[in-house]
Amino acid sequence: MSGVLYGVGLGPGDPELMTLKAHRLISGAQVVAYPTLAGGDSFARSIAAGAIASGAREIVMDVPMTTAREPAQAAYDIGARAIADELDAGHDVVCLCEGDPFFYGSFMYIFARLADTYEVEVVPGVTSVTTCAARAAKPLVARNERLTVLPGPLPQDELRSRIEGAESVAIMKVGRHLAKIRGVIDGLGLLDQAVYVERASLPQEVICPLAEAPEKAPYFSMILLTKGADPWL
Amino acid sequence: MSGVLYGVGLGPGDPELMTLKAHRLISGAQVVAYPTLAGGDSFARSIAAGAIASGAREIVMDVPMTTAREPAQAAYDIGARAIADELDAGHDVVCLCEGDPFFYGSFMYIFARLADTYEVEVVPGVTSVTTCAARAAKPLVARNERLTVLPGPLPQDELRSRIEGAESVAIMKVGRHLAKIRGVIDGLGLLDQAVYVERASLPQEVICPLAEAPEKAPYFSMILLTKGADPWL
Repeated sequence: MSGVLYGVGLGPGDPELMTLKAHRLISGAQVVAYPTLAGGDSFARSIAAGAIASGAREIVMDVPMTTAREPAQAAYDIGARAIADELDAGHDVVCLCEGDPFFYGSFMYIFARLADTYEVEVVPGVTSVTTCAARAAKPLVARNERLTVLPGPLPQDELRSRIEGAESVAIMKVGRHLAKIRGVIDGLGLLDQAVYVERASLPQEVICPLAEAPEKAPYFSMILLTKGADPWL
Repeated sequence: MSGVLYGVGLGPGDPELMTLKAHRLISGAQVVAYPTLAGGDSFARSIAAGAIASGAREIVMDVPMTTAREPAQAAYDIGARAIADELDAGHDVVCLCEGDPFFYGSFMYIFARLADTYEVEVVPGVTSVTTCAARAAKPLVARNERLTVLPGPLPQDELRSRIEGAESVAIMKVGRHLAKIRGVIDGLGLLDQAVYVERASLPQEVICPLAEAPEKAPYFSMILLTKGADPWL
C-alpha cells in the first residue's frame, strides 16, 4: 500500500504559528521534503527545524533562482520522483511549505504532479497576509468589506486599476518591485494608508508606514492598504 | 500594571488547526472572553474547549442575531467593559476568535474599543479560505495570480462585476445568499469551476460542486472559484 503525501503549511515564520496538526505530522514523519532556493538554506525547513525527528530522511528540492519556468519545473520533477519513490515503498512523506500550501505555496507544484496518483492531504497554515495585519495592528476586513490580494510583480497599470477598484488590499512579494508599487500608491493619494511589513513574526521583522520603507525590500515583504477609520464600530 | 489583551485566532474549526501559540495562551489563561450568538453555543469556545484551564473565568458576550448594528455594538460595549475591568486589575485576557481575528473576526470590535488604552497582541489564525481550498483540493493562487475575497451579502450586481474582473475568488458567508450567488456564477458561465464548502475541517464538513450544493447553506459556508487547469505547471 502506498504512503500518504501531506502538504503541510508552516505559517509565516515564527515556529509557534505552526498548527498543532502540522507539528504532530512533522514530529512523526520519517520522511520530510522541502525546497531550497539556489542551494541556500530552506526557509520552510528553518520554521519546522525544532519539530523534525532526528533520523528523518530529507528530500531537498533545490530550486534555481530565476523567473524562467523550466529550470524550477525540472527541480520539482526530480523532487516529485523522489517523493513518489518513498510513497511507493509505503512511507508517508511530509512536504514542508512556508505559509499555506495552496496560497502561493511551492507545494502546489508537487500536488500537480502527484495528486492524481497518490493519496494527498493538504494541511492549511497561517498566511503572511493575516500575520502582517496582526503585527501591524491593522484590521483587514469586517462586515461586507472586500479583500484583494495582488502580487507585486504585476505591471504598474494593472496594479493601479486593481487598487483603485478595491477596498482592503494586500500586495505580496514586494521585493524589487517596491519603488514601482510605492509610486502607484502615491499616485492614487493612498500613501498615508499604506503600511510596509517585512518578515512578519520573525525576529528581524520590520513594520513602518510605506513612506518610510527601506530602499531595498526582501522577497518576503508586503504592503497593506486598509481603509482605516474604524468602519466596524 | 494593566494586563495584556490577546486576540487569538483559533482557525476554521478543527481544534488541531489551532496554532501552538494559541494553544499556549489559552491553556495559560486565567480569563477568556468570547462571543455567543443569540444565547446559543459559542463556536469559538467549542474550538478552544480542550485547551481552556478548569477554573478559568469566562466573559461571555452575547451578540443578538440581527443585521442592525446597534444591538450587536451594545453587546461589545458591555463585553469590552468587562474585559477592561480584568485588564485594570492586572489580569491578562485571552479573547477567543474563530478563524483569524482581523479577517472578518469579531475581535475587531473589541480591538476598536480597547487598543488605544491597553497593550494588545493579535495572534493570527488559519482562515476558512485556505482551509476550504485545502479540503476541496483546489489550489487558490500561484505565481502572479490574484485572489479576491467577497462577502456573499454583497448586492447581485456588485458580485457579478467583482467576479467578472477577478481570477481566483472566495465568496464568504454564503448562508441565505446561496441562490443569488449561484445565479450570478451560472450567468457568468462559471458554474463548473465553482466548489461549495460547508463547515470546512469539521466532522459535518460538506464539499461538492456548486451545482450540487444543498438548498440551505449555513453561515459558515463558502464558494471557491478557481481557474483550474494547472496554470502552475
